Amino acid sequence: MIQTLSFIVTLLGASMIFPAMADFVTGNPDSIVFASSALFVIFFGGLMFFATRQETVAFSRRDIFLFVPAVWLLSCIATAMPFYLSSLEISFADAFFEAASGLTTTGSTILTNLENMPPGILLWRSMSQWIGGLGIVVISISLLPYMKSGGQQLFSLESSDKSDKPFAQTRKYTAAIFMVYVALTTGCATVYMVLGMTPFEAINHAMTTVSTGGFSTSDYSMGAFATRPMLIASSVFMLIGGLPFIYLIRFISGHHVRDVQVSWYLVITLAATVTVFVFSLHHGGEFDLDFLISCLFHVVSIITTTGYAAEDYLLWGPTATVVFFFLTFIGGCAGSTAGGFKQFRLVIIGEVIVDTLAKTFRPNQVRSIRYGPRVVEDRLLMSVMVFSFLYAGTFIVFAAIYGVLGVDFETATSASATALANVGPGIGTVVGPAGNFKELSDAVKWMLSWEMIVGRLEIMSVYVLLLPGFWR
Amino acid sequence: MIQTLSFIVTLLGASMIFPAMADFVTGNPDSIVFASSALFVIFFGGLMFFATRQETVAFSRRDIFLFVPAVWLLSCIATAMPFYLSSLEISFADAFFEAASGLTTTGSTILTNLENMPPGILLWRSMSQWIGGLGIVVISISLLPYMKSGGQQLFSLESSDKSDKPFAQTRKYTAAIFMVYVALTTGCATVYMVLGMTPFEAINHAMTTVSTGGFSTSDYSMGAFATRPMLIASSVFMLIGGLPFIYLIRFISGHHVRDVQVSWYLVITLAATVTVFVFSLHHGGEFDLDFLISCLFHVVSIITTTGYAAEDYLLWGPTATVVFFFLTFIGGCAGSTAGGFKQFRLVIIGEVIVDTLAKTFRPNQVRSIRYGPRVVEDRLLMSVMVFSFLYAGTFIVFAAIYGVLGVDFETATSASATALANVGPGIGTVVGPAGNFKELSDAVKWMLSWEMIVGRLEIMSVYVLLLPGFWR
Repeated sequence: MIQTLSFIVTLLGASMIFPAMADFVTGNPDSIVFASSALFVIFFGGLMFFATRQETVAFSRRDIFLFVPAVWLLSCIATAMPFYLSSLEISFADAFFEAASGLTTTGSTILTNLENMPPGILLWRSMSQWIGGLGIVVISISLLPYMKSGGQQLFSLESSDKSDKPFAQTRKYTAAIFMVYVALTTGCATVYMVLGMTPFEAINHAMTTVSTGGFSTSDYSMGAFATRPMLIASSVFMLIGGLPFIYLIRFISGHHVRDVQVSWYLVITLAATVTVFVFSLHHGGEFDLDFLISCLFHVVSIITTTGYAAEDYLLWGPTATVVFFFLTFIGGCAGSTAGGFKQFRLVIIGEVIVDTLAKTFRPNQVRSIRYGPRVVEDRLLMSVMVFSFLYAGTFIVFAAIYGVLGVDFETATSASATALANVGPGIGTVVGPAGNFKELSDAVKWMLSWEMIVGRLEIMSVYVLLLPGFWR
Repeated sequence: MIQTLSFIVTLLGASMIFPAMADFVTGNPDSIVFASSALFVIFFGGLMFFATRQETVAFSRRDIFLFVPAVWLLSCIATAMPFYLSSLEISFADAFFEAASGLTTTGSTILTNLENMPPGILLWRSMSQWIGGLGIVVISISLLPYMKSGGQQLFSLESSDKSDKPFAQTRKYTAAIFMVYVALTTGCATVYMVLGMTPFEAINHAMTTVSTGGFSTSDYSMGAFATRPMLIASSVFMLIGGLPFIYLIRFISGHHVRDVQVSWYLVITLAATVTVFVFSLHHGGEFDLDFLISCLFHVVSIITTTGYAAEDYLLWGPTATVVFFFLTFIGGCAGSTAGGFKQFRLVIIGEVIVDTLAKTFRPNQVRSIRYGPRVVEDRLLMSVMVFSFLYAGTFIVFAAIYGVLGVDFETATSASATALANVGPGIGTVVGPAGNFKELSDAVKWMLSWEMIVGRLEIMSVYVLLLPGFWR
């Protein structure tokens, strides 16, 4: 386990070469920071790797539960290092927050004046989201089903837990996922460039679009590039990022594919867009195509948990605020880069509700609960429901903590929601699309960092570690 | 069914004699309004009663699902009538809101200048809560378990659904409940009087304390009587109102009783009091006994879903606001007059969470989920979980509707929470303890009235009626 862990961290260290080069080319002194951070991480990662090379490859079930949070935690620390050491002169709490926000593809930032930021920092932020997005897709098809994390076992590629060749299918698909991911990013960057971004801006935004991350190279986020075609292009690529990658791969390879969550994902996006459009007309919204596109863009940005903003949509009146607040929780599809509660769980819970209500007045009825054509067994239902409670509970507990730490109600609740779902912006003046997380205290930033990681790792896989039984 | 329904409504009409007498004695012209409303309701109720006297007594399962909402709806209309016709000159939306808020023991009000209100109106408001509180306790031991409403079947007094003598136990206990309820109210009124209230104030407040309703005879609520002993006495009687009445009866008759939810109820109350006390010290709170008692009083007031306020606790800083917001959802014990999510569901969901998490890393473990000593079967678990989703879903949908109707975020979310849990005050300036619901639009008031009724009837029993299958 430690070997795999060190291998991943070493790779992450090696990737710091890119920002180092970017800073070196533009003559920025941070190139030294990135280069030395890279060497440091590679050195220690490599040392660990070779020290544990006798290790057997097979993971036990418990190893996996330790492995997943350990990867994210170590990666966050490694990613934070150059931020902390760079010319930004920020606290370690800030650096860790920015790194966690990057790797979890949340996109909340504590940095301002991004336009004048050295290119290395900007590139590293975008890369952290791109790497984090790829990581979660791979984990969601390989480890999360195995961990029975909140119903993710529904999307297991392997036919059985006790297969002789563990992860045979996963290995096959991982390469395909990587290629699709690279292709999507390249495509997105090209489109952005054609539509007027500089190559550097286009690459950065492509990386944070496809990963549904939402970091930008401008304080105005996509507001700095808000032409009609740009917003449409960005919406399309965000929407794709919120689709299950397995679905994409099967679709590209010409298979006939159906997944109930995809239909719901598109229906909810459409419904929310229309609602916001109609009810914001009297609050600063105009009855024209530009405003409709803006509504679509922002709904897509929130539901895919990207978190780009092209304008301050909180100025669109109370309806928009409330709709955007609740959209924050929902999220994209399972097996995508998007965070949040996820569509398939909504589908399953809807079925359970109807079934249980029907049984109150027809107690002897026998019906099975289905996800698409497939019958869902009770254990999986339980898993989905328990996920929901932990999701709600985590939201409440963290919101209460922010309140206790002195944050106002609107900020506390929406910061908790946006961190848990890895969205990015919340509502209110501090964490809203026009605000900045740097105004929060260090204690709040630390808690937000944990909440982002808990949310990214689908909650249950982290909370298992809190059970005394796990350690016996 | 219609016979029982008309009997209840007729009784409600007859009880309007009391406010009529109160107004007659003080020479207030509203006595005519109450007397004629009483005659009208008795006449039509009586007519229906005699028209259906051939009806067989036995209810079908579906009849019960129609009966419960019908009782509350008809009672709300009857209760609203004198408000609408009285010298208050309010709209029907306002009158219905006040009646619904009364009968559901919520305690939100659209009236101001209560001190100068005719006694009949004040008495009728308090009586509506007292009657509504008694009603829900009786229904919660008799019909809700039978309706399998969100796990209430756990508290069924009958040994089997198919018992030969339906409701044999229930009939026995209903008389005991009535006596305990009257005794508690008398005791509470006596204590209030001893501590300085006038007899009229004492009777009104006793009725709204024991029923955990929260209507007052003063715009300042309990702030008008906020001496140290008064707040303590009121806290004690509210706490008792939030206990299961069956538990009280068994306790009084000398049985050894244990109910897990009671322990949790007291623990959560204590924990919330300490949290609010400690974290409000820097925000207007003083480190003294008076402030501690005030914290206890307000926590008890919210968790028992009474909703009295002795001061504006929203001035105690962000921690208090966030804690009070989340306390709104929790509520008292099943089988009490209190609303909300209810303690026993928290207990059961906690067990399910631990069990499911443990099974992720020990998949072959077999454990049963228990409520106290009793093993809880899967169907009941499902019922509790579905209740939770509907509770959360109802909160979200209504909050979104208030947002769409133009209400700000804080008011929309907390009004939805406070109506659903039948608490009374929310947070923010409009629906907070220092605000008044009259500032909301009629559309919002209608929606709040429905939400209060849906919350009072434990949600599932109302939503069943929305299933097309129910009507087939």
